[in-house]
Amino acid sequence: MPISEKAIITNMCMIENEDGQILVQNRNSEDWPGVTFPGGKVEKNESFVDSVVREVFEETGLTIHNPQICGTKQFQTDQDERYIVLMYRANQFSGTLRSSDEGEVFWINKNELNNFELANDFEEMFRVMDSDSLSEFYYDDSWNIHLK
Amino acid sequence: MPISEKAIITNMCMIENEDGQILVQNRNSEDWPGVTFPGGKVEKNESFVDSVVREVFEETGLTIHNPQICGTKQFQTDQDERYIVLMYRANQFSGTLRSSDEGEVFWINKNELNNFELANDFEEMFRVMDSDSLSEFYYDDSWNIHLK
Repeated sequence: MPISEKAIITNMCMIENEDGQILVQNRNSEDWPGVTFPGGKVEKNESFVDSVVREVFEETGLTIHNPQICGTKQFQTDQDERYIVLMYRANQFSGTLRSSDEGEVFWINKNELNNFELANDFEEMFRVMDSDSLSEFYYDDSWNIHLK
Repeated sequence: MPISEKAIITNMCMIENEDGQILVQNRNSEDWPGVTFPGGKVEKNESFVDSVVREVFEETGLTIHNPQICGTKQFQTDQDERYIVLMYRANQFSGTLRSSDEGEVFWINKNELNNFELANDFEEMFRVMDSDSLSEFYYDDSWNIHLK
């Protein structure tokens, strides 16, 4: 078996409704404030799909169905851990929208995104998630962003 | 920053040509022999996309372009590490096919897969990679397979 590394694994989900609107969250976070998509940390041994379904429910009240993985983001932390974001898209969901303590959630049109105070580097994450040809957001050792 | 966990991160790629054929590898592996897709281990701090491009080149001689992430597989090792396979699809490539020491590579039609000795659980991996509605292959604590 190959040698393991230290990793922190999280997820984020772009939910689209029938009108082509996307669900954003205005995050009350000291580390990463601003408008993003809902998401959070994958628990130990938790299924990645179960994890994104759980996080979206906790933060939006909606239960997504058949989320599709659409990209990854990664950077190396100052503790030399690989911090990973697994990006998903979903256009099937049920339930009633409600915000959580983590931030208000609301629907907007994609072209309205730039009217908001976006979280740091969220614009590049959105580009990967919204694209059919990009699969990755990668920070190199010098904190340059590479979209692949 | 959240607490990290131990992880082993690998990749696998389903390459399709213009005739709808897929590229398989008859793997000379003691751990996991049989027919699979090319792939291997992600190096520390390596971009996930760069990693799958590198592994495919090493094992097939082909350089893939714009690989798209299409699923994940995971299980917990006996050392309590999360073993992850990042699954990709690619239908753009250049170069000349050649096999490596890791196993012969050759094109087949999808419906011929069952004529071969497939590696353990590869059939379920193929189902996730070939599906537009599945995103995950998950082993639970009792080694039951869940496709999500």
